[in-house]
Amino acid sequence: MLAVYESIKKLLTQIKATSPLIVNVTNLVSMDIVANGLLALGASPVMTMAEEEAEDLLSIASAAVINIGTLDERFVKLVLSYCEVANQKNLPLTLDPVGAGASQYRTRVCLDLLERFQFATVRGNAGEIMALAGQSHQTKGVESAVETDAAAQAAQSLSSKYPNTLIVVSGKIDLALYQGTMLSCDRGSPMLPKITGSGCLLTAVMAAFAAANRSLFSPLEAARDALFFYNVCGEKAAKMAVDPGTFKVHFLDALSCIPELGDYEYN
Amino acid sequence: MLAVYESIKKLLTQIKATSPLIVNVTNLVSMDIVANGLLALGASPVMTMAEEEAEDLLSIASAAVINIGTLDERFVKLVLSYCEVANQKNLPLTLDPVGAGASQYRTRVCLDLLERFQFATVRGNAGEIMALAGQSHQTKGVESAVETDAAAQAAQSLSSKYPNTLIVVSGKIDLALYQGTMLSCDRGSPMLPKITGSGCLLTAVMAAFAAANRSLFSPLEAARDALFFYNVCGEKAAKMAVDPGTFKVHFLDALSCIPELGDYEYN
Amino acid sequence: MLAVYESIKKLLTQIKATSPLIVNVTNLVSMDIVANGLLALGASPVMTMAEEEAEDLLSIASAAVINIGTLDERFVKLVLSYCEVANQKNLPLTLDPVGAGASQYRTRVCLDLLERFQFATVRGNAGEIMALAGQSHQTKGVESAVETDAAAQAAQSLSSKYPNTLIVVSGKIDLALYQGTMLSCDRGSPMLPKITGSGCLLTAVMAAFAAANRSLFSPLEAARDALFFYNVCGEKAAKMAVDPGTFKVHFLDALSCIPELGDYEYN
Repeated sequence: MLAVYESIKKLLTQIKATSPLIVNVTNLVSMDIVANGLLALGASPVMTMAEEEAEDLLSIASAAVINIGTLDERFVKLVLSYCEVANQKNLPLTLDPVGAGASQYRTRVCLDLLERFQFATVRGNAGEIMALAGQSHQTKGVESAVETDAAAQAAQSLSSKYPNTLIVVSGKIDLALYQGTMLSCDRGSPMLPKITGSGCLLTAVMAAFAAANRSLFSPLEAARDALFFYNVCGEKAAKMAVDPGTFKVHFLDALSCIPELGDYEYN
Repeated sequence: MLAVYESIKKLLTQIKATSPLIVNVTNLVSMDIVANGLLALGASPVMTMAEEEAEDLLSIASAAVINIGTLDERFVKLVLSYCEVANQKNLPLTLDPVGAGASQYRTRVCLDLLERFQFATVRGNAGEIMALAGQSHQTKGVESAVETDAAAQAAQSLSSKYPNTLIVVSGKIDLALYQGTMLSCDRGSPMLPKITGSGCLLTAVMAAFAAANRSLFSPLEAARDALFFYNVCGEKAAKMAVDPGTFKVHFLDALSCIPELGDYEYN
Repeated sequence: MLAVYESIKKLLTQIKATSPLIVNVTNLVSMDIVANGLLALGASPVMTMAEEEAEDLLSIASAAVINIGTLDERFVKLVLSYCEVANQKNLPLTLDPVGAGASQYRTRVCLDLLERFQFATVRGNAGEIMALAGQSHQTKGVESAVETDAAAQAAQSLSSKYPNTLIVVSGKIDLALYQGTMLSCDRGSPMLPKITGSGCLLTAVMAAFAAANRSLFSPLEAARDALFFYNVCGEKAAKMAVDPGTFKVHFLDALSCIPELGDYEYN
């Protein structure tokens, strides 16, 4: 645990020192929390809606995040242009397939993106990753142990199709899979999924950690650090909070801090 | 009061147990608070911008909410397609006519929707409902007793035109009118209208309560329960809060709780 | 300081008494905080996306704010129509050139607006104002003393080109320049830039103060009052807050209060 803690501390220190620009082509519901979360972390968020500035923004960016939460035809066109430029520039590209499975339109758009572009990371919940892996997903509501197994299987299937993409499935237990190696993180708070955009923000935080770790070429290590950090921030916030309103406020506070080693011990 | 309290408790318990999906075709300002409020309640919100997924999303939804707060030509087209599919599926459809009266465009769009589709509920403030009833509305600012009378008259006029639609006018005193029966709720906090989207969220909460009560076929009872619950949450939050910033946080906390009977007694 | 304090108190009292309507053609990230901040102040915000209601909304408005934070082609068209109607009506028009300099598209759109329309106020950070003044801006991150000098120079250059426009550069030290007179404000909190939309909201608050002061024909006085008030609210919030999550909540609380003279003394 000491190694993970030291690694997290190092990445956070680097993010705060360099303020990496994270370009978000993202949904309209969670723009506020994603921007505030990235600012709390020390990163520099920008949200864009215009193809006209893809070249300029991606030239100074450290990562690009695509989040399809409120997609429409125009948004998909925008995403295509950002993915193309990001791939040209060899800039790490992250996909959040919000609502894949809930509508065929969302599933189809995500699968098309995965076929056409190289993503460094895909981060979704069990239902979304299962939809992308072509598995039907009937359960609605709270994640179960069974779902963790099904999610792992879906992640394996997606990973074998896109071997250079890190696959992350978040839930009660988070999974990260890259080139045959899977790790899990069973930390966090049940209040996290009660906050709209908590998944979207996790995706953006993972992109920032991956950008900070990039010189180490260890996507799985960056994913592990981001998942531990994010979930432990959830635990810290839950201790201060009564319910989701107060939780969100303390969670943003926690994201802005370099954690103490003690935070990482169970209690 | 005990009967109301028991009924609220029953509906909240059902919402938390079944996580009904509420599809929102809604404005860009209040997406965050509406999504967070519905999550706090135990419901499952989705915000959509695409006609392509109307059929899929409404097939698994328990209610659809139309909120015209940031309408434009494209949004109106989107709304038409969702209303059509919702009516085909006999899914309860709720309209929030944000800003009707402030521009003729908003008034016209709402009246057109009311003519073309069957709405289960329309929820607006006095000025908005008066605009829809064709009455001019000169007052700006705090609701007065006079306005409550004028609002009741406007609700009557609208209700006689759309007899199968529940009409709700929110203000210092909230009114709900359905097929000749009107009830009022004089609870709440003056801080509620100081929070952007508090009206939008009330509309969404009413849709969730109506969906949970649907098997009882009692729209007015569901409206009464939603109005009491929402306003008492406002009172609870006001006791914890200093001003609107802290109020919003405690209000979201309150929405996540099954209330105690004592909360419903005046104090 | 007593004169500034009395002037702030007078403007706030007037805003609370008259609830001036502030029409915002604005970005999607900060709509929530801008609307909540204006409500806290006592003003009446409306966000619009439709040309169809420009005439109606601007007829009852006290000010219009243009914020290009998430511009695209359609948004620029919308902005043009609002600027034209606002100028026709001699309604004070404020521009927030979010991200000017980060992309040529943003810089170009802002310069085009400044050429075609009469703005009462332009409010940006150092990088944005330097971009509009045609000066390249290499520094990224925290504002430095050097940047304050460079910002003052950029403001001078922009002001000489648009002599009837108040130029405001916000940063660690805020500058306001109008027709050859410059004033500065060195109050505030380092947590303010950690909140997304804190610049956008400052712009909107300045528009509300300018509207309330309009009969006095003293744009620089209104700017001074708005800058002091906003920054002292930041200081008050910082005393109550741990980190950015709690800061934002207390900041909105502070914006809703008529300040005490003691708040304006350094400590």
